[in-house]
Amino acid sequence: MAERTVVTLGETLAALVEGKKYATLRDILVTMNAVDVAGIFEEMPEEKLPLLFRLLPKELAAETFVEMEPEAQELLIRGFSDHELKEVVDELYVDDAVDIVEEMPANVVKRILRQADPEMRKMINEILKYPDDCAGSIMTTEYVSLRPNMTAGEAIQRIRCTGVDKETIYTCYVTENNRKLVGMVSLRTLLFSEDEDVLENIMESNVISVNTLEDQESVAQMFTKYDFAALPVVDQENRLVGIITVDDAIDVLQEETTEDFEKMAGMAPSDKPYLRTGVFETWKSRVPWLLILMLSATLTSMVLTGYETSLAACSALIAFIPMLTGTGGNSGTQASVAVIRGLSLGEVEFSDTFRVVWKEIRVAVLCGVTLAACNFVKLMVVDRFLLHNEGVTVLVAAVICVTMVFTVLCAKAVGCLLPLLAERIHLDPAVMASPFISTVVDVVTLVLYFQVARAILHI
Amino acid sequence: MAERTVVTLGETLAALVEGKKYATLRDILVTMNAVDVAGIFEEMPEEKLPLLFRLLPKELAAETFVEMEPEAQELLIRGFSDHELKEVVDELYVDDAVDIVEEMPANVVKRILRQADPEMRKMINEILKYPDDCAGSIMTTEYVSLRPNMTAGEAIQRIRCTGVDKETIYTCYVTENNRKLVGMVSLRTLLFSEDEDVLENIMESNVISVNTLEDQESVAQMFTKYDFAALPVVDQENRLVGIITVDDAIDVLQEETTEDFEKMAGMAPSDKPYLRTGVFETWKSRVPWLLILMLSATLTSMVLTGYETSLAACSALIAFIPMLTGTGGNSGTQASVAVIRGLSLGEVEFSDTFRVVWKEIRVAVLCGVTLAACNFVKLMVVDRFLLHNEGVTVLVAAVICVTMVFTVLCAKAVGCLLPLLAERIHLDPAVMASPFISTVVDVVTLVLYFQVARAILHI
Repeated sequence: MAERTVVTLGETLAALVEGKKYATLRDILVTMNAVDVAGIFEEMPEEKLPLLFRLLPKELAAETFVEMEPEAQELLIRGFSDHELKEVVDELYVDDAVDIVEEMPANVVKRILRQADPEMRKMINEILKYPDDCAGSIMTTEYVSLRPNMTAGEAIQRIRCTGVDKETIYTCYVTENNRKLVGMVSLRTLLFSEDEDVLENIMESNVISVNTLEDQESVAQMFTKYDFAALPVVDQENRLVGIITVDDAIDVLQEETTEDFEKMAGMAPSDKPYLRTGVFETWKSRVPWLLILMLSATLTSMVLTGYETSLAACSALIAFIPMLTGTGGNSGTQASVAVIRGLSLGEVEFSDTFRVVWKEIRVAVLCGVTLAACNFVKLMVVDRFLLHNEGVTVLVAAVICVTMVFTVLCAKAVGCLLPLLAERIHLDPAVMASPFISTVVDVVTLVLYFQVARAILHI
Repeated sequence: MAERTVVTLGETLAALVEGKKYATLRDILVTMNAVDVAGIFEEMPEEKLPLLFRLLPKELAAETFVEMEPEAQELLIRGFSDHELKEVVDELYVDDAVDIVEEMPANVVKRILRQADPEMRKMINEILKYPDDCAGSIMTTEYVSLRPNMTAGEAIQRIRCTGVDKETIYTCYVTENNRKLVGMVSLRTLLFSEDEDVLENIMESNVISVNTLEDQESVAQMFTKYDFAALPVVDQENRLVGIITVDDAIDVLQEETTEDFEKMAGMAPSDKPYLRTGVFETWKSRVPWLLILMLSATLTSMVLTGYETSLAACSALIAFIPMLTGTGGNSGTQASVAVIRGLSLGEVEFSDTFRVVWKEIRVAVLCGVTLAACNFVKLMVVDRFLLHNEGVTVLVAAVICVTMVFTVLCAKAVGCLLPLLAERIHLDPAVMASPFISTVVDVVTLVLYFQVARAILHI
């Protein structure tokens, strides 16, 4: 039997590199998608990279370059001759060029801009001036623009002449002389119209557009809402300055979702993949929230110290503290995550606060009573009967179960309210998620627990 | 001053409905996007719905119908004459028709299928036979297919003749007589080619496709990876059966993300928006995990009862239990969420386990030491000096801080390992998130705490 039966494509190609079978290698690479070529290249030894890259035909080379990690891109650029760099830069779409420029050190940026032709350079600088995370920074300025008095036939002709280096030719924008956006027409409409139809009559004139400074997250949400393939970006005077295509919107969506996950777990957002983030960097993104939450737990310590005499009088109560705070935390997290996700999908708004709270209260009562009932049975059967924990009397069990109902109620109320309030004061609701809510709920639970205990057990 | 200065579009339209100004209403509605029309209609009183709907021109009516909630769709269908229903059904894309059919009760489905023309009915039934959540169930069978021996000019002509009711005409698939998929060509390529170029020579022949039974989540991931506008779906014999378009892929992405959020917060996934889910339904999706986690907290109770004598000997320890378990839970959640997100973005795989654990151990040591140091200072300054808590001696503080380091270490290790193991045994890593990990970490933390206390304080 052969020692290894599974051979991956990566291993096959590595063997070809090893054996210097470059012609065969090239034949395989040209059949592949740029994303996959980039993935294979990242696995190869660094010093082979420039050689491998030179095997690719011009267009595939540029596409692969875009898909590589910044470190590999920098390495390649440093190895390029001016001529090679120009060839790659000429093939790039302007929004991809901007993404690359943003990641490179200053001297590499200078070299890139020097090799770009003047028009490209102007477009790059145009996009670079917009703040990060806004529509202007993710748009491209390479779009097809048409005039309202053109015929469909003329428009198709114009697309065939000028469209080759545009990011999309499927959605075209109709502008007047002053670049004012007056309409939108899809290539589909153009193809299905008569050649002599005038654009003015066949275009969509109520165009949904976004402002250059619009937040990229709300731009991405417009794509999910309207199923657009592209969205025009306009300045304050409704002049067309660029377009955003759906593939870039998907990237934003994924980025923003990752950020939400990170914030909800009490981490500072990072824009690098998990395995590429250094240990020190990860520590820096995680330790602040851990510290804040740890220090705010001083409150729970104070509550416990404050009720020390009650605890001494009935030490059986201690054993159920983690169960109560845990259930409170979990109940609160459920409510907060449901509301946070609803907010970010646009299903819930601040004006729904009353409906949300009313719903959570009813859910909380149902959950609380179910949990309390099950818990009572468990306390009697498991703790008292099976584990012979003599401290768990019927009254103690009653204290625990009554507290349970109130805890779930408070936790759900806090859990749904905090994200809504955050939204209201323009904070990100996601930072109000599980860790923060658990800390608040811990304190509330403990106070409830001991007040109920004093009332029922008279301690 | 007027009583109200802000008037929304919805209010204006409601006033027009009230005043029976239907002509004006129609003039406004026709300028709007179907998504927005649907949004406005949902706010209107139910009994007005059929009347409002009849104001819309045929195409906008069908588009609006697709965007409405199932309840409103059912109401409308019940009000339609057979002729009206046929008009709407004729305008629908087959994948939208399938989505509607899936939500309707059996008698409504029968009426829809009776009004659909035979070809449409065949396509609907074709798609309905695939299991939920697989590629086949989200595809459409309305695509443009071309032959390898056609010229670019012929292909464009064919698109103009047959493309009008296809979901997309921008990505076309090249098949042989037996429907075998042999290539892909974009309308862009066709437009930029010479009219006499033969498809065989200009098409992309290494087509990335998915099988009908492929999981919808991995289909959506292919869109984010490759930036496709459409993806062909083939059967076991590589015969083309349908295509999936990017807008449907985005919907899947959003759905799957919501599911991840819900699972990570210990809720059963729901496919209805937050405010449309009933109280009982919400209770049903939340209570199982709360119950499981509450009952598994029996373990923490047992640990606390087991160390009762140690607690009695040094009651100051009690006050810091929630702080330690809380910090452990938060540390574990950070690691697990980072790994879960990495897994779902394809950045982390099971084979990276060693690298992940090694990274988390180093991060945990950094975090643990930072937290312990800060905590020691806090215990001495706040608890001992400011709050005069005499029980907090230097030795007690040492116990708490040493436990802190070990807790963070265990929590991060458990937090990153559990999702990886879940992935390995084909469970959803998301269910291993915060609530589950907190429960495991609670037990570990308490055992550590008392063992360290016994060692240092000799109790």
